[in-house]
Amino acid sequence: MSVTAAAGFRAAGVTAGLKPSGKPDVALVVNDGPLHTAAAVFTTNRCKANPVLWSERTVADGKLEAVVLNSGGANCYNGPEGFQTTHASAELVAELLGGGAIDVAVCSTGLIGTLLDRPLLEDGIRAAVGELAADGGSAAATAIMTTDTRRKEAVVHGGDADGGWTVGGMAKGAGMLAPGLATMLVVITTDAVAERDTLDAALRQATRTTFDRLDTDGCMSTNDTVILMASGASGVEPDSAELAAAVQQACADLTRQLWTDAEGAHHDIEITVAGAESEEDAVAVGRAVARSNLFKAAVFGDDPNWGRVLAAVGTTDAVFEPDRIDIAINGVTVCRSGGTKAGDPAENVDMSARHVAVEIDLGAGAATATVLTSDLTHDYVHENSAYST
Amino acid sequence: MSVTAAAGFRAAGVTAGLKPSGKPDVALVVNDGPLHTAAAVFTTNRCKANPVLWSERTVADGKLEAVVLNSGGANCYNGPEGFQTTHASAELVAELLGGGAIDVAVCSTGLIGTLLDRPLLEDGIRAAVGELAADGGSAAATAIMTTDTRRKEAVVHGGDADGGWTVGGMAKGAGMLAPGLATMLVVITTDAVAERDTLDAALRQATRTTFDRLDTDGCMSTNDTVILMASGASGVEPDSAELAAAVQQACADLTRQLWTDAEGAHHDIEITVAGAESEEDAVAVGRAVARSNLFKAAVFGDDPNWGRVLAAVGTTDAVFEPDRIDIAINGVTVCRSGGTKAGDPAENVDMSARHVAVEIDLGAGAATATVLTSDLTHDYVHENSAYST
Repeated sequence: MSVTAAAGFRAAGVTAGLKPSGKPDVALVVNDGPLHTAAAVFTTNRCKANPVLWSERTVADGKLEAVVLNSGGANCYNGPEGFQTTHASAELVAELLGGGAIDVAVCSTGLIGTLLDRPLLEDGIRAAVGELAADGGSAAATAIMTTDTRRKEAVVHGGDADGGWTVGGMAKGAGMLAPGLATMLVVITTDAVAERDTLDAALRQATRTTFDRLDTDGCMSTNDTVILMASGASGVEPDSAELAAAVQQACADLTRQLWTDAEGAHHDIEITVAGAESEEDAVAVGRAVARSNLFKAAVFGDDPNWGRVLAAVGTTDAVFEPDRIDIAINGVTVCRSGGTKAGDPAENVDMSARHVAVEIDLGAGAATATVLTSDLTHDYVHENSAYST
Repeated sequence: MSVTAAAGFRAAGVTAGLKPSGKPDVALVVNDGPLHTAAAVFTTNRCKANPVLWSERTVADGKLEAVVLNSGGANCYNGPEGFQTTHASAELVAELLGGGAIDVAVCSTGLIGTLLDRPLLEDGIRAAVGELAADGGSAAATAIMTTDTRRKEAVVHGGDADGGWTVGGMAKGAGMLAPGLATMLVVITTDAVAERDTLDAALRQATRTTFDRLDTDGCMSTNDTVILMASGASGVEPDSAELAAAVQQACADLTRQLWTDAEGAHHDIEITVAGAESEEDAVAVGRAVARSNLFKAAVFGDDPNWGRVLAAVGTTDAVFEPDRIDIAINGVTVCRSGGTKAGDPAENVDMSARHVAVEIDLGAGAATATVLTSDLTHDYVHENSAYST
């Protein structure tokens, strides 16, 4: 159900022909209200795609009526014509639904640097409007997939028997998953009653510790967008902390789905850094390890190579002393006190499961953070050398 | 000839049995003087190997009599026993040659986290002392190889018929080649007469624009060491700028050898950033592109994917406007004004050669810099997943 799990939303996913594969490629999510509050976070990449440049403007007033999304083309770095295509999409949605283009956000994903076929896209939008349905969430989630192997949806229920409300979400990911947002398009909806500032705070808090800590390949996208919209259709106004917790849970759920379906990955690597002086230090150390191609290749080879972990830790500015660092891989403390004390044998580490837990204790404080990444595999190289994105 | 091309130096390379392959693994370079001035730069990784911790002390007074090097083990993160092995190596060299251990630098490369076999290493040192020869440079250069497929040597001559002098050098590289020094051991010798401060300035200036701009896999080593020693045996004291230029040339030569023999590489990628506001900006942009796994995988697939270049540029803090950036790949301007003007067709780019030139013009100033990297290949993944280093 994804985005239509929350009352007050309709969605659709159709095939417009933008993808050579002939798979669904245009999605539409419409907020029927009564509220139309919204918040969004975007890629911090300074080279932004046209739909990001447009959507930043649309959400500036905290109000959105709809989001139109396409796969099959990122609409990025293709000049004024590309921006006009984004704008025309929003105009068409507004015209068909009755409203202003400035309340229609646009998201695109796919190949950078080529033009989207505007007539095909517009026909797709018309078809999507015709298919809008209160159970259209899964069709929308399917239409935004690129190299994703699975549709990504999340639903979280809040409130109680006297007044329930729901948060629903969909996401696409696969490649270019990195800091300050992965290459992802995410739409989250709720039928809770919430002001724009409440939504904005909830979304920023949630993305900071979920999507922002997923770093599968160190590459930051030009198109990342996470949108949260509230319809208020449940008539229930939850406590802001309660709503924030539900949004956080939906984001965390989608993040794990993105993580476990990253391009070419054979192992999902969960790097938990403890004993840090600050959370920033813990994140910096986790990210440095998540970006070590050598460590990621070792994990692909089922080699619990803690020397490569320690070498990556050493590249950071975090507070630590090398001879106080412990490293455990899948529960086996392979490195104790930075190697100055005997670690347990690497042979004891079972690397056969897809999930690999790396626990780094810096011995410098009480802060902790977890960063999620993937191993570096032949399939990753293959997908990204043979497939232009 | 490498390090023995300069007069006043003897060298040797022997097989001590540290490498399971039975290939040469212990090298010794001895400065017979009359001068014994020296300078060195080391990894900026905060988790340093035992030989780095030791060698930093030995060179602190600007004097070295010898350098002993081993492959077959990094002697890193293995506790007090490992440091004692480093110290014992220096002691043994000093005892056999007559001198103080504090004038003997030690370099190690190979697997992190395991102990070196001290008796084997000591036997190797004894054998190396016995084989020291004025033409032993190539044997030494061979003994420091790990996954290198070729020995790396450089020779630069300075001066004129009235007074010539020479700079010679050797290097090992292959993997973990990244910022603030690649995983490299480099020994450079000269028979010029030069004070320690002259050597230090020449070496720092040279490494800043050569080894420091090689970033094959974004991974910084724990053992990187570049040592420059002067014997003064030519009796000629060149102008400091002249000596610096020769050292620079030797470092640049060795850098290119490291670059073109990087682990698993199929393409050598030369990223030249022009039009930057500052040299720092140019280096930051070059390095960001050099670390984009997606771009590097695209190059492996012979895909001149400029969108991934621009996406990497956008992650930096450099001064630029996205719509002023031009990108040429192998001479074809595939991206003009950040895609706002039509680029030349990507089909015109010939990617068949091993060398790939990426030229990025930021349109923001007059500064320029070049960063060297490699493509991301199946062979890189294979070597680093199947082989523990």
